[in-house]
Amino acid sequence: MARIVALQTHDVRFPTSRTLDGSDAMNPDPDYSAAYLRVLTDAGDGFEGHGFVFTIGRGNDVQVAALRALEGHLVGRDLDATLGDLGDVWRELVHDSQLRWLGPEKGIMHMAIGAAVTALWDLRAKREGKPLWQLLSSLSPEEIVNLVDFRYLTDALTRDEALTILRDARAGRAEREARLLSEGYPAYTTTPGWLGYDDEKLARLCREAVADGFSQIKLKVGADLDDDIRRLRLAREVCGPDIRIAVDANQRWDVADAIRWVRALQGFDLAWVEEPTSPDDVLAHAAIAEAVAPIPVATGEHAANRVLFKQFLQAKALSVLQLDATRVAGINENIAILLLAAKFGVRVCPHAGGVGLCEAVQHLAMFDYVAVSGSLENRMIEYVDHLHEHFVTPVDVHNGRYYAPKAPGAGTQMHETSIVEYTHA
Amino acid sequence: MARIVALQTHDVRFPTSRTLDGSDAMNPDPDYSAAYLRVLTDAGDGFEGHGFVFTIGRGNDVQVAALRALEGHLVGRDLDATLGDLGDVWRELVHDSQLRWLGPEKGIMHMAIGAAVTALWDLRAKREGKPLWQLLSSLSPEEIVNLVDFRYLTDALTRDEALTILRDARAGRAEREARLLSEGYPAYTTTPGWLGYDDEKLARLCREAVADGFSQIKLKVGADLDDDIRRLRLAREVCGPDIRIAVDANQRWDVADAIRWVRALQGFDLAWVEEPTSPDDVLAHAAIAEAVAPIPVATGEHAANRVLFKQFLQAKALSVLQLDATRVAGINENIAILLLAAKFGVRVCPHAGGVGLCEAVQHLAMFDYVAVSGSLENRMIEYVDHLHEHFVTPVDVHNGRYYAPKAPGAGTQMHETSIVEYTHA
Repeated sequence: MARIVALQTHDVRFPTSRTLDGSDAMNPDPDYSAAYLRVLTDAGDGFEGHGFVFTIGRGNDVQVAALRALEGHLVGRDLDATLGDLGDVWRELVHDSQLRWLGPEKGIMHMAIGAAVTALWDLRAKREGKPLWQLLSSLSPEEIVNLVDFRYLTDALTRDEALTILRDARAGRAEREARLLSEGYPAYTTTPGWLGYDDEKLARLCREAVADGFSQIKLKVGADLDDDIRRLRLAREVCGPDIRIAVDANQRWDVADAIRWVRALQGFDLAWVEEPTSPDDVLAHAAIAEAVAPIPVATGEHAANRVLFKQFLQAKALSVLQLDATRVAGINENIAILLLAAKFGVRVCPHAGGVGLCEAVQHLAMFDYVAVSGSLENRMIEYVDHLHEHFVTPVDVHNGRYYAPKAPGAGTQMHETSIVEYTHA
Repeated sequence: MARIVALQTHDVRFPTSRTLDGSDAMNPDPDYSAAYLRVLTDAGDGFEGHGFVFTIGRGNDVQVAALRALEGHLVGRDLDATLGDLGDVWRELVHDSQLRWLGPEKGIMHMAIGAAVTALWDLRAKREGKPLWQLLSSLSPEEIVNLVDFRYLTDALTRDEALTILRDARAGRAEREARLLSEGYPAYTTTPGWLGYDDEKLARLCREAVADGFSQIKLKVGADLDDDIRRLRLAREVCGPDIRIAVDANQRWDVADAIRWVRALQGFDLAWVEEPTSPDDVLAHAAIAEAVAPIPVATGEHAANRVLFKQFLQAKALSVLQLDATRVAGINENIAILLLAAKFGVRVCPHAGGVGLCEAVQHLAMFDYVAVSGSLENRMIEYVDHLHEHFVTPVDVHNGRYYAPKAPGAGTQMHETSIVEYTHA
């Protein structure tokens, strides 16, 4: 009987602050990093499970310590039984009565559980010879709902309602999968818009984004209103009227500031305003959304768990749901969030960028299209052209679209050489 | 010029799971623990600053790693400048752009910042020769609001509104301080009510609580309704009709369960129902509060930050606010929460128990009475008779009241011998 025999962890940090890639109103100098986990087995099949938490530098060591705290739960487990019931594994990890106190269900401990869960999915997908999106899409509605913990969700989404959503989506699965394989999934790009870039670089990158086939770009805003107006005007001039332009304030504002600022920018035909204020503040987002309508409010990359997303949907506090691959407790919790979004009829446009977030999150969006929402309408995955070269199966983005990965796994495996070269001393 | 020269950290764990002290519906086997921090200086005055995060066992090592991640911010600082502007220190730590990503403002990293901030307050209070509650109460309204970060609060509480609350409370400060010193602050006890205790122990501890002068007790509920009814009936019989009995579900229920369960218990004249569901779920608490009225809903010990408390108050989702000494980012954030509660006219009944939470949180409640709300009406600090012997200045609770500490400091210093004996191997 094969078992999980060891966890290996790595504190991997890329010195991105040197070039101000990734700079925004709240994060002026990120060093894009990964608290990285490998799950090793004695199956002798050569497969390892890889997962990680994206961080932006300091504290990545604490995130690694949280990964190590999961050893007692994982090492020694029967491999087939574990991979065969990842819903049960999720519940065991998230509801560990002592670890739970450290959140509960939020922050470093919750994200560590997410990396472990994703590493197990990576391992399962490799062993089954499928990319994760295809593995998930091949599961029955019953198998999918068994992955989800409905605790705290039933006032908005019951297991039976989730089953109905998934059963309704069975029709057309094969056609959508074929369409995905031939046409890909739409992307938008944040590459031009970092606050640390000067106007010349902004204009050049906007031109390149249009030339590369993107139909939406995103600019960071929120540090200085006059600067934002100048940069939006420049971007709109360069891109023309047919490219959608979203703005992202990275939690910079209070409610009144947000409303005033967004109204000052509304002449630029904003595709959405992202993270206007604290990611915990459901009621503030609802107030802002009502005041700036019809401009959509987007958030989610810092939403700690499915309970937050549930409330954002109940309160009509967002109309673009931006799930993130490593913020919540992994694949299972993101499936819960996709089901919530489908129940409320809200579009999902995943957050990506960082380290490996594009590689990881595309699987969730593609699974959603094939097996949950069945829709591509106004949906896009964020794209940033950073650090893909460090991954064994980097994303294939061209013509403004993510092309579906065909390699087995969850997309989360970094090159051994990159891990070694960028391990933090 | 004196400086902070080192942080020392300790992973302290007490084996409380052996006796089921502290057992409830979500935490069946806690090992009460402290991720413990000492701030050392070269002032040569013999004073150290002590702070900690309470946890319940596994993962305490990760919490300690988070304390160590603050070394770069604290070691080398000018001592007088640091202690003289703890509002600025709070902002620097909480808004560190890289560490912030790990929450933001929640979970392990946020609690670590709380321990550091509290350790600095402990050091300042020792150097000024005052217990913390008295030090805080001696500050001017302007000094107090400078400790508070109003970011994300201004839709509910502005700096000017906070100033008005504090200025209005100036009248009567001296009388209230004198009354506190002579009469103490009301307490209630959770000692009888842990789920792991049998009926005989429950009855005996209820009798003792009444004999000890407590006018309110609290029972853990939520695992089995028939058991809860039997235990409540027993407690009511033993205590008589004049003792208030609160119940605590420790996040066990979804909305519909909570409403059904509380209605089944309402014949027992409940003082409040505590933590009916996820501590993140403002909207669920609001729905439950409306459905079970007039039974008050209490929560807060797991509320991650002031933004959560703000929303609970805005949504009328709680009517008993249970702040916790080590869940949020220390003294400063708890001052913000006290000001929010005063603005909304909601009573504060702090969570305590655990390791050192009684010792720490009494300072906040007493400061609130003297300088913020000015009220004792229906207010009580939780009391549990665990582990006080490990603290240098243990609480003085008798006749059902907390008597005001007179020793300098924040109450957060553990005996050296306890730290050594219970350091986790």
